[in-house]
Amino acid sequence: MTAYAQHTWTTAVTTADEWLDRAREVAVVLAADAVARDRVGATPYSEVGLLKDSGLVTLLGPVEHGGGGQDWTTAYRVVREVAVGDGSIGQLLGYHYLWFWTARLIATPEQVAAVEEQATCERWFFGGAANQRDNDLVVVDEGDELVFTGRKSFSTGSKVSDVTVLAGVLEGTDKHVFAIVASHQDAIVFNDDWDNLGQRLTESGSVEIRGVRAPWSDALGYVDKQFRPRVYNSLIVPLIQLVFTNLYLGIARGALTTAAAYTRDRTRPWPYAVDVKETAVQEFHVLDTYGDLQSKLWAAEALADRAAALIEAINTHPDTVTERQRGEAAVVIAAAKQRAIDTGLEIATRVFDVTGARATANTVGLDIYWRNIRTHSLHDPIAHKRAEVGRYALLDELPEPTWYT
Amino acid sequence: MTAYAQHTWTTAVTTADEWLDRAREVAVVLAADAVARDRVGATPYSEVGLLKDSGLVTLLGPVEHGGGGQDWTTAYRVVREVAVGDGSIGQLLGYHYLWFWTARLIATPEQVAAVEEQATCERWFFGGAANQRDNDLVVVDEGDELVFTGRKSFSTGSKVSDVTVLAGVLEGTDKHVFAIVASHQDAIVFNDDWDNLGQRLTESGSVEIRGVRAPWSDALGYVDKQFRPRVYNSLIVPLIQLVFTNLYLGIARGALTTAAAYTRDRTRPWPYAVDVKETAVQEFHVLDTYGDLQSKLWAAEALADRAAALIEAINTHPDTVTERQRGEAAVVIAAAKQRAIDTGLEIATRVFDVTGARATANTVGLDIYWRNIRTHSLHDPIAHKRAEVGRYALLDELPEPTWYT
Amino acid sequence: MTAYAQHTWTTAVTTADEWLDRAREVAVVLAADAVARDRVGATPYSEVGLLKDSGLVTLLGPVEHGGGGQDWTTAYRVVREVAVGDGSIGQLLGYHYLWFWTARLIATPEQVAAVEEQATCERWFFGGAANQRDNDLVVVDEGDELVFTGRKSFSTGSKVSDVTVLAGVLEGTDKHVFAIVASHQDAIVFNDDWDNLGQRLTESGSVEIRGVRAPWSDALGYVDKQFRPRVYNSLIVPLIQLVFTNLYLGIARGALTTAAAYTRDRTRPWPYAVDVKETAVQEFHVLDTYGDLQSKLWAAEALADRAAALIEAINTHPDTVTERQRGEAAVVIAAAKQRAIDTGLEIATRVFDVTGARATANTVGLDIYWRNIRTHSLHDPIAHKRAEVGRYALLDELPEPTWYT
Amino acid sequence: MTAYAQHTWTTAVTTADEWLDRAREVAVVLAADAVARDRVGATPYSEVGLLKDSGLVTLLGPVEHGGGGQDWTTAYRVVREVAVGDGSIGQLLGYHYLWFWTARLIATPEQVAAVEEQATCERWFFGGAANQRDNDLVVVDEGDELVFTGRKSFSTGSKVSDVTVLAGVLEGTDKHVFAIVASHQDAIVFNDDWDNLGQRLTESGSVEIRGVRAPWSDALGYVDKQFRPRVYNSLIVPLIQLVFTNLYLGIARGALTTAAAYTRDRTRPWPYAVDVKETAVQEFHVLDTYGDLQSKLWAAEALADRAAALIEAINTHPDTVTERQRGEAAVVIAAAKQRAIDTGLEIATRVFDVTGARATANTVGLDIYWRNIRTHSLHDPIAHKRAEVGRYALLDELPEPTWYT
Repeated sequence: MTAYAQHTWTTAVTTADEWLDRAREVAVVLAADAVARDRVGATPYSEVGLLKDSGLVTLLGPVEHGGGGQDWTTAYRVVREVAVGDGSIGQLLGYHYLWFWTARLIATPEQVAAVEEQATCERWFFGGAANQRDNDLVVVDEGDELVFTGRKSFSTGSKVSDVTVLAGVLEGTDKHVFAIVASHQDAIVFNDDWDNLGQRLTESGSVEIRGVRAPWSDALGYVDKQFRPRVYNSLIVPLIQLVFTNLYLGIARGALTTAAAYTRDRTRPWPYAVDVKETAVQEFHVLDTYGDLQSKLWAAEALADRAAALIEAINTHPDTVTERQRGEAAVVIAAAKQRAIDTGLEIATRVFDVTGARATANTVGLDIYWRNIRTHSLHDPIAHKRAEVGRYALLDELPEPTWYT
Repeated sequence: MTAYAQHTWTTAVTTADEWLDRAREVAVVLAADAVARDRVGATPYSEVGLLKDSGLVTLLGPVEHGGGGQDWTTAYRVVREVAVGDGSIGQLLGYHYLWFWTARLIATPEQVAAVEEQATCERWFFGGAANQRDNDLVVVDEGDELVFTGRKSFSTGSKVSDVTVLAGVLEGTDKHVFAIVASHQDAIVFNDDWDNLGQRLTESGSVEIRGVRAPWSDALGYVDKQFRPRVYNSLIVPLIQLVFTNLYLGIARGALTTAAAYTRDRTRPWPYAVDVKETAVQEFHVLDTYGDLQSKLWAAEALADRAAALIEAINTHPDTVTERQRGEAAVVIAAAKQRAIDTGLEIATRVFDVTGARATANTVGLDIYWRNIRTHSLHDPIAHKRAEVGRYALLDELPEPTWYT
Repeated sequence: MTAYAQHTWTTAVTTADEWLDRAREVAVVLAADAVARDRVGATPYSEVGLLKDSGLVTLLGPVEHGGGGQDWTTAYRVVREVAVGDGSIGQLLGYHYLWFWTARLIATPEQVAAVEEQATCERWFFGGAANQRDNDLVVVDEGDELVFTGRKSFSTGSKVSDVTVLAGVLEGTDKHVFAIVASHQDAIVFNDDWDNLGQRLTESGSVEIRGVRAPWSDALGYVDKQFRPRVYNSLIVPLIQLVFTNLYLGIARGALTTAAAYTRDRTRPWPYAVDVKETAVQEFHVLDTYGDLQSKLWAAEALADRAAALIEAINTHPDTVTERQRGEAAVVIAAAKQRAIDTGLEIATRVFDVTGARATANTVGLDIYWRNIRTHSLHDPIAHKRAEVGRYALLDELPEPTWYT
Repeated sequence: MTAYAQHTWTTAVTTADEWLDRAREVAVVLAADAVARDRVGATPYSEVGLLKDSGLVTLLGPVEHGGGGQDWTTAYRVVREVAVGDGSIGQLLGYHYLWFWTARLIATPEQVAAVEEQATCERWFFGGAANQRDNDLVVVDEGDELVFTGRKSFSTGSKVSDVTVLAGVLEGTDKHVFAIVASHQDAIVFNDDWDNLGQRLTESGSVEIRGVRAPWSDALGYVDKQFRPRVYNSLIVPLIQLVFTNLYLGIARGALTTAAAYTRDRTRPWPYAVDVKETAVQEFHVLDTYGDLQSKLWAAEALADRAAALIEAINTHPDTVTERQRGEAAVVIAAAKQRAIDTGLEIATRVFDVTGARATANTVGLDIYWRNIRTHSLHDPIAHKRAEVGRYALLDELPEPTWYT
């Protein structure tokens, strides 16, 4: 799989459309052995290398430092396109974008500039460990330095990342502290225990944080040990929930287009039909099913795009975002996520009906889509997301900003 | 119902957003007695008067003649908004826009200018009789004049229209001829036989065409008795199919918002639940259901908006539209239509689960939405629309332009 | 509609199969003008006459008094068959069976014998007024007599019934008292205010009980003014919930078979299909849809039959029924009811897809099925029925006997 | 996994209910390591041993030879129960029953008696190779012997079977010949190439038949080289399709009950709900989902039981079964199969919504159910099964007996 290094990239990538083409190019490269890599479960060092070489890792970075200078509208579409080819790598990239952007959400302007410059120049790949249902990391103030200690159940990226975003609570206070630290240090132990049915290459295992040290100056948003948060702060959850949504949409599209190729090339018509056809693609139920699934997918994609537009509107004036704007974006994202999940699971299950029995061979690998969507879509219960949208539709109530809404 | 005449309109309506507000204003007026008017089934003269007075009838007309000068993006949204309040009137308005626009699709530039000026200045309300599954009207060439004869099963608008678009085949040829003629003339007999379960006020009954005369100069697109069609010609079907889609979306939204008001105001919590709530809106299944339905509706709306953007892209260069552009727009519209119908029927059925048994009282009238969507959504079989999308998704094949694809 | 009186009945009706044939015969008679009678909304005196003449009214009555001597297994199937032809009359008959059986559930053996003899000999048609979400009727003990006073929102049967079952609470106590009283008396005022979208002929309007008098000896289950209930008591709700289930199943079957006849006789093939067929019944999507709907209906029917077997098992030893037996029957009935409702609504909506646009004409009347199921299926919220089954499946907990579980 | 040998069986197994208990006992044993064995993919010798020791292998065998003497009603239920614990082993057993029964369907009475005696006494485990979409095996008549040659893509059971049923066509004729031959012989090569996403332990790989010899006396149903088929012949397909149905139902139940145990024991309530509960089992959506899934499963099971009753009715007079009886049974089985598949896939997907994210761990193995149902349910296209039921519902047409209908 070192073959990735030999991929020759088209030179100019400037516009959003060119970045999307680039993402599609990456997806094609990844798709070629996505199933094989999933079976092996090898740590995706090469894949992250591919993301770096393609420029996608620095998509959001400032142009002056060699970044793509793109906005989240493009980032979401890029995640979706990459996930078409490989859901795991799409997730790694999407989480990376979120962590890359964390500074913007909570840091001081100086910190933002510094982080984005260094991350772009050095092509940092970000990981993070922030599962809110675990206990918080404990952060001890040792004067000039902060020391993080604890355990997190899930740390997507982990050992393929260059830096990790830690979040903890300052001991004896209720203050949250975020810091970006080097992933590869003795005080961080990635347990390599991600063994789930899908998204197998995301390195989402648990992590032990055994006294990771960071200078106070790296505490994002802190000035003189005081937190000066942007209102923007509360956007982490909507941002990542829409990353999830685009991830599912990409996987679902991967399922649909992969299945369509199989149906065209390999599926045989049914010889016991009343009205036997010469090819499978002439069978009405085959066309009917693909049409149904494609229509549903387009609808879910269109809603995700509408949600992205709301995020972009907020990003144009991050410091004056209102609770209502934040809340309405969160609700539309919750709706888009539901549509992506329902549609994705339906596509990933029903494509078999139009590819046929032999498409269940492990060499075909058409099960990877259901496994990938089913695994990640449980991140938080979709029933509560529906209720969140319901409260808005019925009562015009917005979700309380939490770590999941 | 003459009360409509007394409605006082806000003065300035210029931008698309203002036109949408105006459409919402019309919808609110119509919604007040939509169920009552549906029960009575009275011919909607007043309602068409309302559409004229509000300016919506001339929305697409040139600004210099007093029209709104709006594009189809706005027209679709206006149809959707009006249909929220009254599905029948939304349909009348949507069909009117299509017939108003027919000149643009097939007439000569001079005819377009003349028709749009007169239609705008005189606030024509358009009807049309073009069901393609009936026999064609016969058109006889009598030298200076054409004479149309025949029968059409459905003629939406009919006697509430000022003008009717006739389409027929020139006797002894296979040439189609379209002409705009006065609706109120002895040679046109509207049979007033529309008696269907929904869309009751659309005056969609059959019409007898008994020798309607039109000068050759009114034959749209003909110069010296020769047809000089625009490529654009084939857009009638996508345009109207997207009108349908927005019609269903509007009715579905009407169902959802009307039901939500009922649930808030009148639905009682279930006293035999294990976890009894004080109000119905606190019941989890109520929130869950509204969230599910709202999410689906938003997704369908977003896809309809995406389809409208494709139509608008075509409208910006009508004479150079390619078959591929036309075909891809048609496919996305077919997909949007499916999502609108599936979603609309689901909403119109399931809202009762969250309003309760007493909401089936005829005084409530919550059944109007299912009746309206169910009736019109059968215009052409949705299974074949799915197959149309399926052929594109699976085989990259575009639909042949016909009267339904 | 007096024509019913002239129907000539086949003579011998003895076995369960013969009674089902008889029910089908009644259904055919009713179906002939079910839509027309629904439109008119006339009080179904003739229809009840038909039920009496056919012998169905006394189906559960003792053979020695001229009754059919059948069990509930047959009664449920009869309700289903009659509802195929006319949902309203199916409901009237189903409620009648419940009220007829009320004595068995709570009365003393002597009362049971007396009531069943008289009801059978005199061919009583039963109504009842027992909506539990209204306030209870007040029952005053006047020594030898009881006096019932109050109001009930719904009283299915009402003025077409001969007798009405009243339920109230003895003033100053928490004792429930049931009595069978003559429906036609000055102290009972049927308000004739049932005006809902479906089940229009069920006479389910409200009733005023203005001092209805009954001797203490008619207080079912009371001996010397003390209630001596059978354990069996708590079976009213499961019994009636399974009546509902069979009602929905019958209506759903009516929709499917009526639509099938329309498709065979009148639906035209789609001329714009890629693969145009000569007849509609050759179109794959038509066969696919009917197959899907029929399969779902059969599954729901099979579960209702399984539920009926549980009821019958209880009926074989009514005095020793355990809470577990009662509870498990209630849970399976709750499940069957859900499947009947979901399936019924789906059938009643989707049949239009395979009959086509012209099947929305009011002369066809294919909307009656959706209206009928949608109206009655809201009797109690189906979400709570699902939760009831869920508690059993997940926790092995049985529903508390209430008026709805 | 030799541990199976040490399982101590309860002694007396005589009645159908006892056999069902026995099947449940086997299911519990198998379930303990079903996921682990699926991961390893080891050939299920021990499992077949377990089936033999439990007596299930000879369930259909004559009592006088030590068999269970049970009918298909019991056999279907047994397959369902075993599949609850292990879908692969359920399939092996179901196919075994079919092949065991093949003699009854086509052999002469003498052959039936001989086969059933020997198979029962020697506890034969049957396999078979009969995929009809492959080319037929060629059978050459060498005087006293027949010689089978060819290849079949799928041969469930294969090397864990004692005997294999071969089906081929007599060279130069269109006569089909079935024979039961020893599985372990040089002329049969099992390719061990079953590598599919589910039903991994069914040993369903391809087989090479390289001149397998059988005496003419073993040609089932042949007397003096002439075929004397029973009408019954055409029942192979309905019989096996109902085996499939019960297999899916068992797997689906396994999913539901395994998930329920997980939810009870390990799923945490959602801490960000508006109405936070102390346990997950109190969450309304959890109860709602389990109730919905359980109701659907019960309905599908009830229809499968109804189908089994039709098969049993045929089995009581195998030589006089009519085409109509056979056809109606086939249609109901087709319907039951659809309901089982739809329901099974829905259960296997949605259970994750009520177990939560951590239930995607491979140590939990909750994905086995979706993989198992999805894999086998593609045996023949369900859309054509729906069309088959549709033709019956709409046109009263029965399926032509083929190898799939």
